[in-house]
Amino acid sequence: MRIALDAMGGDHAPAAAVAGAVQAARAYGIEVILVGAEDRLRAELAHHDTRGLSLPIVHASQVVEMAEHTMAVKQKKDASMVVAMRLVREGRADAFASAGNSGAIMAAALFILGRIPGVLRPAIATYFPMPPHFSLLLDIGANADCKPDYLLQFALMGAAYAEKVYGIANPRVGIISNGEEPDKGSTLVREAFPLLAASGLNFIGNVEGKDIHRHTADVIVTDGFTGNVVVKLTEGVVSFIARAAAQAATGSWRDRVGLLLMVPGLLLALPGLAVLAPTLWRLRRQLSWREIGGAPLLGVDGVVVIGHGRSDPYAIRHMIRQAMVAAQQGLVTTIREQIARTSHAQIGEEQG
Amino acid sequence: MRIALDAMGGDHAPAAAVAGAVQAARAYGIEVILVGAEDRLRAELAHHDTRGLSLPIVHASQVVEMAEHTMAVKQKKDASMVVAMRLVREGRADAFASAGNSGAIMAAALFILGRIPGVLRPAIATYFPMPPHFSLLLDIGANADCKPDYLLQFALMGAAYAEKVYGIANPRVGIISNGEEPDKGSTLVREAFPLLAASGLNFIGNVEGKDIHRHTADVIVTDGFTGNVVVKLTEGVVSFIARAAAQAATGSWRDRVGLLLMVPGLLLALPGLAVLAPTLWRLRRQLSWREIGGAPLLGVDGVVVIGHGRSDPYAIRHMIRQAMVAAQQGLVTTIREQIARTSHAQIGEEQG
Repeated sequence: MRIALDAMGGDHAPAAAVAGAVQAARAYGIEVILVGAEDRLRAELAHHDTRGLSLPIVHASQVVEMAEHTMAVKQKKDASMVVAMRLVREGRADAFASAGNSGAIMAAALFILGRIPGVLRPAIATYFPMPPHFSLLLDIGANADCKPDYLLQFALMGAAYAEKVYGIANPRVGIISNGEEPDKGSTLVREAFPLLAASGLNFIGNVEGKDIHRHTADVIVTDGFTGNVVVKLTEGVVSFIARAAAQAATGSWRDRVGLLLMVPGLLLALPGLAVLAPTLWRLRRQLSWREIGGAPLLGVDGVVVIGHGRSDPYAIRHMIRQAMVAAQQGLVTTIREQIARTSHAQIGEEQG
Repeated sequence: MRIALDAMGGDHAPAAAVAGAVQAARAYGIEVILVGAEDRLRAELAHHDTRGLSLPIVHASQVVEMAEHTMAVKQKKDASMVVAMRLVREGRADAFASAGNSGAIMAAALFILGRIPGVLRPAIATYFPMPPHFSLLLDIGANADCKPDYLLQFALMGAAYAEKVYGIANPRVGIISNGEEPDKGSTLVREAFPLLAASGLNFIGNVEGKDIHRHTADVIVTDGFTGNVVVKLTEGVVSFIARAAAQAATGSWRDRVGLLLMVPGLLLALPGLAVLAPTLWRLRRQLSWREIGGAPLLGVDGVVVIGHGRSDPYAIRHMIRQAMVAAQQGLVTTIREQIARTSHAQIGEEQG
């Protein structure tokens, strides 16, 4: 198993990328190909104990910056993400991973790997942490405007992913709407609904905003505009609550006196807290995008995982794990078969 | 000041409605007209001390149920919400409030009050609690599909509301999008962007999901589909965090032992907690929809406030307060002038 890592991608590249690659190579016993400026990568590797690990470097002289326009991938033919993507197309790597400019990664994937035959639009998927289960959500940003048949394909690809990568048999599929009833929704949602109902998937109907985090479905489809708002709003609400609580506790002298009065009691409570710590730690981890690592781009002809720009080594390691599992499970083949079957069925219907 | 209250609307009607009306009449010194089944309302009023309060009853023999189709308001001409709405149209009340079937309330408002001249689509607005400030968000559900000029009008109406009801001078207006840059967005958002930029409003551009709760804008416009998802998702994330924390703290015997060990310390911390209590209480209140009470329907020719179906007396009281303030501030006149000015400007441009 060989993962091509764009080692120059992300806010903390290449240091975080190299450190994460070292962790992943050791934890999973796989080869991680570091793609980027050879001298810088060699210097980063020197900070780590890499004995027994497979971490070859493939040189790339250019970098697509985080703020650069998507189309930079056309000009910069020797950019790290372009070179890494080419390794996958040429069969020299089994999967691609990068915490770099996500629009540029998508463009590079379309130009270099292309779409799986029959796929109308690739989609970015993420999953929401929900102990002990997860819901896969797609599209979260590749397609701001969607048509009903895109959403149908997102459902097919998402279900294939949930089955292959997470072993969920016959995953429940839902669609985000502004009400539970089948007649609720925008025109897009109301037109996609019957397609999903007739798809042969385990379609459970509309999912309201309040139920997105309740694991009422294993796969939740939506357009990339709504998906993006959902992911970023979730992040925003969590920060809001943390800020509001901090503000409530430190807002006035009266509050500070209250906190001081609480200190002896809290010290006495410490042993109990220590016993609780593993659970709290697990909760924090489950709520963190760093644990997820990255979002797969479904529908392109190769495994592509996109990480968060802010990725640290821990997040990079989990992004690489995602790419590894998807490649091991033959995700691309599964999606290809799923899409081919559905296209044939549709053609059959049209001819019938 | 006379508020027409649909006393049969809401999951806990008429008991919660009557109790909330009594609270509001006492707190704000206003008349609350209770509309509904006279005998039941009289029986509810008997549980309260109403001396010196103005709480007349107007009888209505029918009720539009919570799950009933919107169009029931056309058949049920003596439904409490229909009768209450008519009081506003006939000038016998200054504002309407109901915690009943929101789709039916919108339909009744359109049939009975009609739209303010020039308004393309009324919109439902809510505000997100953000101590010490609030952002007004609209549309949150009246129009699942929108056109760019609807969003422009939502911005005009929302800004008028923020200025009149909350005294925010020159409110900052933003639009929800899937990125900060002006070229980000669905087709709808990218087409609405230049209209907003040329509107004369204090337009600050795109607002991402993660910033909706950060008070980067005073008024945030979006289509009713996205707005509905945003409001319900916010509710869902808050519940998710509460559930996850509860699960973490009570998940295993080990955790329960940890909690037990913490008890003496927590007892010792109690005095400090008592000092902190007012702040924590304030935070809880600020985060609660019960404090907000209701969502105004902007663009119809009268003040209409829609409450949460689950409203208790406290929420009903605040819904009535919202209706009162909007009527006192001349909200409808302001929106009429705002829309007329903009329509004239547009006609002028077209002729110019």
